[in-house]
Amino acid sequence: MNREKVQIFDTTLRDGEQVPGCKLDTNQKLLIANRLDEMGVDIIEAGFPVSSPGDFLSVTEISRIVKNATVCGLTRAVKNDIDVAAQALRYAKKPRIHTGIGTSESHIVHKLNTTREDVITRAKYAISHAKSYVEDVEFYAEDAGRTDNEFLARVCEEAIKSGATVLNIPDTTGYCLPEEYGAKIKYLRENVKGIENVVLSCHCHNDLGMATANSISGAINGARQIECTINGIGERAGNTALEEVVMIFKQHPYLNLYTDIDSKQLNEMSRLVSESMGMIVQPNKAIVGANAFAHSSGIHQDGVIKNRATYEIMDPLDVGVNESSIVLTARSGRAALAYRAKKVGYELSKVQLDAVYVEFLKFADIKKEVLDDDIHQIIEVCKVYSELIRN
Amino acid sequence: MNREKVQIFDTTLRDGEQVPGCKLDTNQKLLIANRLDEMGVDIIEAGFPVSSPGDFLSVTEISRIVKNATVCGLTRAVKNDIDVAAQALRYAKKPRIHTGIGTSESHIVHKLNTTREDVITRAKYAISHAKSYVEDVEFYAEDAGRTDNEFLARVCEEAIKSGATVLNIPDTTGYCLPEEYGAKIKYLRENVKGIENVVLSCHCHNDLGMATANSISGAINGARQIECTINGIGERAGNTALEEVVMIFKQHPYLNLYTDIDSKQLNEMSRLVSESMGMIVQPNKAIVGANAFAHSSGIHQDGVIKNRATYEIMDPLDVGVNESSIVLTARSGRAALAYRAKKVGYELSKVQLDAVYVEFLKFADIKKEVLDDDIHQIIEVCKVYSELIRN
Repeated sequence: MNREKVQIFDTTLRDGEQVPGCKLDTNQKLLIANRLDEMGVDIIEAGFPVSSPGDFLSVTEISRIVKNATVCGLTRAVKNDIDVAAQALRYAKKPRIHTGIGTSESHIVHKLNTTREDVITRAKYAISHAKSYVEDVEFYAEDAGRTDNEFLARVCEEAIKSGATVLNIPDTTGYCLPEEYGAKIKYLRENVKGIENVVLSCHCHNDLGMATANSISGAINGARQIECTINGIGERAGNTALEEVVMIFKQHPYLNLYTDIDSKQLNEMSRLVSESMGMIVQPNKAIVGANAFAHSSGIHQDGVIKNRATYEIMDPLDVGVNESSIVLTARSGRAALAYRAKKVGYELSKVQLDAVYVEFLKFADIKKEVLDDDIHQIIEVCKVYSELIRN
Repeated sequence: MNREKVQIFDTTLRDGEQVPGCKLDTNQKLLIANRLDEMGVDIIEAGFPVSSPGDFLSVTEISRIVKNATVCGLTRAVKNDIDVAAQALRYAKKPRIHTGIGTSESHIVHKLNTTREDVITRAKYAISHAKSYVEDVEFYAEDAGRTDNEFLARVCEEAIKSGATVLNIPDTTGYCLPEEYGAKIKYLRENVKGIENVVLSCHCHNDLGMATANSISGAINGARQIECTINGIGERAGNTALEEVVMIFKQHPYLNLYTDIDSKQLNEMSRLVSESMGMIVQPNKAIVGANAFAHSSGIHQDGVIKNRATYEIMDPLDVGVNESSIVLTARSGRAALAYRAKKVGYELSKVQLDAVYVEFLKFADIKKEVLDDDIHQIIEVCKVYSELIRN
């Protein structure tokens, strides 16, 4: 079976940047956009041009400097939004306008206060209008995750007829479970006329911790674009994490799906975004957390020292981390202690190791982490102690 | 269809606490254990008694104070580990010994340097020996995620024959995808003699961001216990997050699965664990992150102001958060500005709002977040400005 490419649509600078506290200036955005482009992102969503003059400027400047990726601007299904986005994207080598409207009952009734027919009319108008500026138009059916599949299929069919090149099926509220979201993509693939001529895109939110799992389920069921952000930042609990998507395809070759991202840049990219935005990445974040490749339990350390693959499915080098670390704590065993003692210059016999291990545990039970200096001290104490015993 | 209960097995104090930097003293552990018990956790894994004298003491003391939950101690399939665990659990009202051994080729060959037959022999011995102390014995097939299903089924069958009451199927390395992990649980349900008499348990790691999704898939396929931690902390990228599991079942009643956790305590529990361990929760963490219920884009704010359900699937009160917040940034629209202006005392006409909004955007484009004080200032500036125009 031929491997198929899944396009990576990065929205760090749009859905990510709209988060409280994440505001970036244009120079910071340019730096990030440039690095995303170098890392192999296929589409960079650079902003929501109509939202503010600052965002308009950023989209304009990003459009100038991006060399390979498509540059995309967000709009509502509103004429002025689209006019402004087209203007902001005027220097882009490959411009894309991203327009759309809510399609769930909740959005149609409570937010838009209108009817299904009106939503379809507005969608068609927006796509046609965007098409008058650019060839590449992506349509989003907002809150598709809670939209009934039959109506969603109708909206998609009309969007294709109006010229949409990409159909984005967002789980805007982060409601879906993987099976459900995958089934939605499958339903559209089977029930929308002309679907084979457009790309289906997953845009998932993480309110229940399912964003990445839903996107992968979407891709397994035929979506060929995933919208994601570095470190999974974004509105509320965030979006699908780019780094997770990339490594899942890499570690599961039997899916026959791949991305063009250079995974070795993931760790540095994560730090750049975290530091620019002041958005902390928790130590236990998958792939890019500080502890993602740290082993501390004795059982695990023993295994990793014998053979890395016993407890590690990824080579840290593949995501740009130099090496996995063996952290000494009260949960560490003799194997890890001997390994680290050797690293700092002590070759301990079995009897010596037993003696040092007892002292080590006393120390570790009151200290979070045992460092190289502590090991020197513990071993020296044991030496003195055994001299005394002998005398 | 009758709703079925999924037991919550919390391992914050064992798999969570073994993380670099997470070391707790016995008093801190007692406080957390007590709160887990009050929140409705079914099983508290209190530690790994043989690992250190400090951990032994903690398990002993936790056993004394826990009122409702089963208290569990971890062991390897080693006689001394089990003897020590039984000793540490002697005061527990409902003690459980958790023992097990690696079953994947990687673990059998590279870590244990032995054979499949020997692994089965050791497993049977460990379970029988644990059974001599306690009735409730949970067996883990370490690295089950990468163990072939046929051998795993054989191990499980032998474990049941030896008296195991719970079978833990850990995805130790965080390798599986939800479909695959669910299929593994289903396979065991269909191919292991006596499986209907034991509880199948999911213990998933988050290396690819799939821990929660895999656990849910396991439960959908028949597992009735999920092993998890507060904030998803744990070895490397961590474990399944307790708060995500609880809210997924709550928000998806059609699954007919429930837990006994009082979700209103989730937010406070998250803070307690984060502060005790010094383990930061990232703002975009599902359910318990600082931004989990914060809305900042104009489109979303407009929707939430009209009707909360347009962009929120959970009531923040259900997880112990007082209210969702409308954060003003450069991505906010007129609706949010009017809403907040009203809250701080200004009823703006449409014309006034237009004028203030222009000033607001200038301000917001250079500031991360616009606070109440800033709104006063912006509106006062506009007032002065319009006075000048009039004069």
